[in-house]
Amino acid sequence: MLQSKLFSKTSKDISKDEASLNAQFLIKAGFVDKLAAGVYSILPLGWRVIRKIENIIREEMDIAGGQEIFMPTLHPRKNWEKTGRWESMGEDLYKLEADNDAKLILGPTHEEVLVPLAKKFINSYKDLPQHVYQFQNKFRREKRVKSGILRTREFLMKDLYSFHADQEDLDNYYEKIKEVYRKIFQRCGIGDKTYLTYASGGTFAKYSHEFQALTPAGEDLIYVCDKCKVAINKEILNDQKNKCPECGNSQLEEKKAVEVGNIFKLGVKFSEPFDLFYSKKDGEKQLAVMGCYGIGIQRLMGAIVEVKNDEQGIIWPMAVAPFRVHLLELDPRDAQIKENAKNLYQTLQEKGVEVLWDDREDKLAGAKFADCDLIGIPYRVVISQKTFKEGKYEIKKREEKEGQLVNLEELLKIVTVK
Amino acid sequence: MLQSKLFSKTSKDISKDEASLNAQFLIKAGFVDKLAAGVYSILPLGWRVIRKIENIIREEMDIAGGQEIFMPTLHPRKNWEKTGRWESMGEDLYKLEADNDAKLILGPTHEEVLVPLAKKFINSYKDLPQHVYQFQNKFRREKRVKSGILRTREFLMKDLYSFHADQEDLDNYYEKIKEVYRKIFQRCGIGDKTYLTYASGGTFAKYSHEFQALTPAGEDLIYVCDKCKVAINKEILNDQKNKCPECGNSQLEEKKAVEVGNIFKLGVKFSEPFDLFYSKKDGEKQLAVMGCYGIGIQRLMGAIVEVKNDEQGIIWPMAVAPFRVHLLELDPRDAQIKENAKNLYQTLQEKGVEVLWDDREDKLAGAKFADCDLIGIPYRVVISQKTFKEGKYEIKKREEKEGQLVNLEELLKIVTVK
Repeated sequence: MLQSKLFSKTSKDISKDEASLNAQFLIKAGFVDKLAAGVYSILPLGWRVIRKIENIIREEMDIAGGQEIFMPTLHPRKNWEKTGRWESMGEDLYKLEADNDAKLILGPTHEEVLVPLAKKFINSYKDLPQHVYQFQNKFRREKRVKSGILRTREFLMKDLYSFHADQEDLDNYYEKIKEVYRKIFQRCGIGDKTYLTYASGGTFAKYSHEFQALTPAGEDLIYVCDKCKVAINKEILNDQKNKCPECGNSQLEEKKAVEVGNIFKLGVKFSEPFDLFYSKKDGEKQLAVMGCYGIGIQRLMGAIVEVKNDEQGIIWPMAVAPFRVHLLELDPRDAQIKENAKNLYQTLQEKGVEVLWDDREDKLAGAKFADCDLIGIPYRVVISQKTFKEGKYEIKKREEKEGQLVNLEELLKIVTVK
Repeated sequence: MLQSKLFSKTSKDISKDEASLNAQFLIKAGFVDKLAAGVYSILPLGWRVIRKIENIIREEMDIAGGQEIFMPTLHPRKNWEKTGRWESMGEDLYKLEADNDAKLILGPTHEEVLVPLAKKFINSYKDLPQHVYQFQNKFRREKRVKSGILRTREFLMKDLYSFHADQEDLDNYYEKIKEVYRKIFQRCGIGDKTYLTYASGGTFAKYSHEFQALTPAGEDLIYVCDKCKVAINKEILNDQKNKCPECGNSQLEEKKAVEVGNIFKLGVKFSEPFDLFYSKKDGEKQLAVMGCYGIGIQRLMGAIVEVKNDEQGIIWPMAVAPFRVHLLELDPRDAQIKENAKNLYQTLQEKGVEVLWDDREDKLAGAKFADCDLIGIPYRVVISQKTFKEGKYEIKKREEKEGQLVNLEELLKIVTVK
């Protein structure tokens, strides 16, 4: 991609009401744009990140037996009355104007749509288990929105739901998804900062689990057990008598964190109101048992930014970076330099390396370096009079201070490593 | 995919209020499910089709220089007041309840979000042209919904918007997108039934153009010129004096059709209210000129079903079929047959061929054949006592009456052809 053609531009100054670091960097660098309080557009750079995150999650969901579907945003009010969440979540629901269609709300989650749908297909023990997931916008009437894209009113979620014949099958699948989630956050580059965190389990389980990424920007307080590499959410700390639920360790460390995923044993909470019964082998009717497993996609992007940055900007992990190489030509009006940059750009693309080429002719070197650090692509490759004369390229990793001069072969070797 | 594990099932009887053929087949075969009037969930089979359509469109958009973004569903009312569409489209807009947030509506299209966004980045002639697109849900308060998934209240759209320095640049890009659209409908398998159709151009152009797919289920009447292979929408037939705008032919044939895409020269209709000026080379300020280009994704899926079917069910074009091969084992309780089917299933998957394997043990041959025709996957491969004894497989194309017995090598050759 030629940076001169990129739809977005970097900007130095943004609205002062964007206090959070993730929104500051993402807006300045041109990854997202704020349309209204808690409502953001995702721009080309940001959408490339989102799609990479989505693809990582999709691969892992498919391996875990998930089948992808796509449920609507408009939900019938009567489904929400049936589960009691029309009342209990009433404050959080966006409702349509009465003259328009008072019978519809905007879905903040999808149990109320999926369970009656599953009832059409699940009749017998032979139809279980089932695991379906989607990537779909959710809507919540957050009273206060802060924290940039970490907590918004409209947000993309991956939500997986599982249906089981009994508690044991749910328990096994739940443990499997724990590992799948660890792998997802690992692949997204924040595995070492993300803790499986014990939280309240509701009616049907002792615990639910959150995946909390450590960052000073986090809204949650968690208590980390350094022995087990797990944490406890503040809400159950008292019940746990301030001890690690796995090893009993009471030397827990308080940390700020942001929840990037959660998994929850729903039991029969939703199969009951919708009569989701199935026939057992002996013909007896029994309620299906459910689990649900969420990841907020924009929030994960925001959390990655909060965890991976320095004063100059973002430091994208390789697997979710919008491009792998940021190619800077420092003397773009010199025909030889231009030619050299163009050849390298083409060579890299032929090798399947995604490149953002800063071909802008009206920017000085300082501005190009600053934008490059702000945008945060893993490899910076510089072509200048100096490198050209030596027949080399200067390559530098985003998180390193010093670059090195390499020839084309060495360069290709570095940037094509998986 | 094992059919015994598939989330959806086929059903014989569906609600009688689904009069349209596309909804009948898509619901019976388990591609979609109706949640409320004009609101559908997309199930795993349907989502595989949608993702294939999306990928074809995405590839063509990227070739046409499009940059993918993702804009919100929640739109500030003030943006819509600015363009006058708060009034002019008022009846079609879903509005949020006053107690919730009377300042927000659900986006039926995205000019009101994109143009103020583009204004942040487009300042100079050097910043033009720009082409951005998205796949995003749209919401329209259709008073009557019929025609299954052809006209719904919530629907996925691909919308591309272009920004140009002058009319000539818009005109050139518009002609380019005409060809891109022809290619998209060709790749989706309905190119020969889809006509470029002259329609009203609004304020800024003599014509806009629709892409209309011929089907008796169509809500539109178009008049086809068989010489030029173009058509005229009824709304401008009088203005055209019943003649083809390209060759003057007055022997036009009236046909029913469904609009699967449209392209429109917006001119300065939206750049004006949002003051989207840019500086020309000489410093003079000028309004950017715009075009917009839409394709309804579920509608395209529905139109393909309307065009490609027989009495038994859907006949998916290869490029958008949910799977390439439907593998039927007719004696699944025979261990040898099961083994034979399993081996073929694995071999096909290793070759990258997508297979739905009807491994259901509780279904008789007749039910499997009927489901196979209903679902409409391009190749049916049957394994039975008879084929197994001969060391062969029976392969039949969905649209053909008779199958043929082939050995493994011949089978692989047939199903791996691009």
